[in-house]
Amino acid sequence: MHSDLCSTRANVRSGECRATDLLQAAIETARSAVCDHVFAQTLFDSAMHDAARAAPQLPLAGLPVTVKDLFDLQGTRSAASSLVLADAPVATHDSPAVARLRAAGAAIIGRTHMVEFAYSGVGVNPHFGTPAAYDARFGALPGPARVSGGSSSGAAVSVASGAAYVGLGSDTGGSIRIPAALCGLVGFKNTARLTPLQGTVPLSPTLDTACAITRSVRDAILVHEILAARTVTRSSAGIAEWRLAVPRQLFFDDIEPAVLQAFERSLAQLRAAGAQIVDIDLPELDTLAHINDHGSFSGAESYAWHRPLLARADALGRPYDPRVRSRIERGASMTAAQYIDLHHARNQWIARMEQALAGYDALLSPTVPILAPSIDSVAPADGLDAAVDARRDAGFQRANTLLLRNPSVVNMLDGCALSLPCHQQGELPVGMMVWHGGMHDDAVLAVSQQIEGILQAA
Amino acid sequence: MHSDLCSTRANVRSGECRATDLLQAAIETARSAVCDHVFAQTLFDSAMHDAARAAPQLPLAGLPVTVKDLFDLQGTRSAASSLVLADAPVATHDSPAVARLRAAGAAIIGRTHMVEFAYSGVGVNPHFGTPAAYDARFGALPGPARVSGGSSSGAAVSVASGAAYVGLGSDTGGSIRIPAALCGLVGFKNTARLTPLQGTVPLSPTLDTACAITRSVRDAILVHEILAARTVTRSSAGIAEWRLAVPRQLFFDDIEPAVLQAFERSLAQLRAAGAQIVDIDLPELDTLAHINDHGSFSGAESYAWHRPLLARADALGRPYDPRVRSRIERGASMTAAQYIDLHHARNQWIARMEQALAGYDALLSPTVPILAPSIDSVAPADGLDAAVDARRDAGFQRANTLLLRNPSVVNMLDGCALSLPCHQQGELPVGMMVWHGGMHDDAVLAVSQQIEGILQAA
Repeated sequence: MHSDLCSTRANVRSGECRATDLLQAAIETARSAVCDHVFAQTLFDSAMHDAARAAPQLPLAGLPVTVKDLFDLQGTRSAASSLVLADAPVATHDSPAVARLRAAGAAIIGRTHMVEFAYSGVGVNPHFGTPAAYDARFGALPGPARVSGGSSSGAAVSVASGAAYVGLGSDTGGSIRIPAALCGLVGFKNTARLTPLQGTVPLSPTLDTACAITRSVRDAILVHEILAARTVTRSSAGIAEWRLAVPRQLFFDDIEPAVLQAFERSLAQLRAAGAQIVDIDLPELDTLAHINDHGSFSGAESYAWHRPLLARADALGRPYDPRVRSRIERGASMTAAQYIDLHHARNQWIARMEQALAGYDALLSPTVPILAPSIDSVAPADGLDAAVDARRDAGFQRANTLLLRNPSVVNMLDGCALSLPCHQQGELPVGMMVWHGGMHDDAVLAVSQQIEGILQAA
Repeated sequence: MHSDLCSTRANVRSGECRATDLLQAAIETARSAVCDHVFAQTLFDSAMHDAARAAPQLPLAGLPVTVKDLFDLQGTRSAASSLVLADAPVATHDSPAVARLRAAGAAIIGRTHMVEFAYSGVGVNPHFGTPAAYDARFGALPGPARVSGGSSSGAAVSVASGAAYVGLGSDTGGSIRIPAALCGLVGFKNTARLTPLQGTVPLSPTLDTACAITRSVRDAILVHEILAARTVTRSSAGIAEWRLAVPRQLFFDDIEPAVLQAFERSLAQLRAAGAQIVDIDLPELDTLAHINDHGSFSGAESYAWHRPLLARADALGRPYDPRVRSRIERGASMTAAQYIDLHHARNQWIARMEQALAGYDALLSPTVPILAPSIDSVAPADGLDAAVDARRDAGFQRANTLLLRNPSVVNMLDGCALSLPCHQQGELPVGMMVWHGGMHDDAVLAVSQQIEGILQAA
């Protein structure tokens, strides 16, 4: 496992190593096969310049950071890994999230590929290829290449492989946490309002969150403090003092045995360390699916934003990923009244959920119920026969539904969640999600840090 | 002119008069013909009880207050002057706005009639009759009965006639300021987010504001402080120190000569007192109409809320006012994407407007461009012939458009505005609107108080 940002910057500050040397090694990794399909654009020269100039006492100490292809970064294009925005105007300013990372001493080595317009959780991109999952803890995965999860697919692989310490991304239904779970990383989706979304390509402004993938929980805290321009309140409570709960609805449906095993083993390890964890009944989870009966925020809001762009794509002959386009176009049929009802229904559901969760400090769930599917089982099969195409498409739809299901609960809740690895050597990556409602970020981070320590010591 | 709340409560505090005696006189007024069609429900006994108990040092000192028929008030029905909600459940709690007034010592003497569901600016109600305008400054209007303006029609007449010192109401496109202008009163629509809307029947949650009608600007300040639970910052600046402007677009289109004359005369009086007032070009006003090309917030949001109620009305055979129903049903055809676009367009328009207004402390405009139409020219003409019906309907549509046009600019701006009387004895009521963008409330109130003083002394 690569060392995390916090330990590395300590070494830079003590003079034990130099940011530019570390950056050079990261660039070698970024150029290697493990990072195939990861970068939409590399910025090695400017990153080297920034690393050389960055004061070691800055929070990020000149260390390498990547930026998902939907954040404005001065002098580059925010194409969101699409063709239709391939000639978008070059950004004249950094988005606030990028500006905060840069001011904190980030050496930005490139823009990372993603699911086109961030609209799926699998990580497949038919235009630019699909980054393969890499386990940050135990290295290359055995067997066939697997998806890294999405939509922040390149971000995750850049951090897992060692090309970066931080992958700036976004999370609308799990786009940070899914690839974190599938790549043995930490992904923290903070309460949305805490971090700035200006200067980004939107998917669903109601649900979008600007946040990041890191190698450890303490790195997640550090990066969140930079992105949110605030200080996280630390806790001195021991693991036994937190009131933890595992809701048994929804999150465990269709779970793969390997995921269930890793998750339950982790619960047992936490209990052995003194954690008080209760199974709870959370019937509100069963009602969630019906809230979207007449369409989703992502559908309506992406359709509103994409309408002129869909026409442009047709005029220029630059196709959207058909799987993305079909999901956007589902938003066309929603009426204003249905959309307004959806907001009301969500607000009422949030109120019921917050009441149900009020007695707990954090909830624990499997981040996603499945292992990373092989790329071959879900990527488009151009040139193969129709039966293969149909099979892969069905595989994609099933994987997408299952991958998004658990994390998206927290976006609907306007809440916060951290995914951390809970698998062991010899297993494929599995994530545990620590979560709660809005503005419980500091408790979720504190609980996550203790869980990480217990699981890594077990 | 009846004395205002501030001077009356001083008399109560000094022991010069008693709240219960004043209330008894107000009740007599409420029972008189001037208040025909004003009250949906009277609460004289409980008001007398409250007035007798209220400590004279409380801000409202046990003095009479009315509540528009859309605010929850414990033990009464919020019917919004409709038939379909005539058997609505009795409210189990006061809405926060009502609770704040009550805690401040209000003696609530009744629920006031309004335009059904608050959805027009004229003040006509076919179910319960139309309150006739009464001039708070100079008494009964000459000539035929005229509309009091809407939607807070009963609220205005209750305050103008002397039945109450404060009329709690709401303003979505002018519903406080229009009746204030047509009844010689002060109507202050604060920045929406400053006052609570919970426990009210909504028209457009994006635009609705809970606020009140009073007899003077200082009363408006007092009542706003109660409703907003905050303290208004007073200014010691003289009239010459404010940067005042009169935008010459839109607000003066189709203006009636009597309104123009009163407004321009008032500007001259202000200038004579030292005010610096510049005419400005505000081209953003010309673009506003197009923002609603695909429908309005009130249409979409009222349709979303009313759908189940429209079905109930049909099932029970309890009709809506057809003029209200047709406006609500216009919202049915709006798509989610159009509604989302409308929010974006509004936000961008607000940004442009705020930039254009940044150099001024307040804007001055005619509150409405016309005098109050006669009730006969706009009320439904049941039993008369079809030609009369059509003529009155056309009169209503024209009046409604003109009455809403100026005040609704401020709702779209998410701003604040105060209407104060600027007519003289022998003239019909005319309002001057002092306004600005969001959170400029304290400057608007300070400027308004100085203008009121100068115009009354002139």
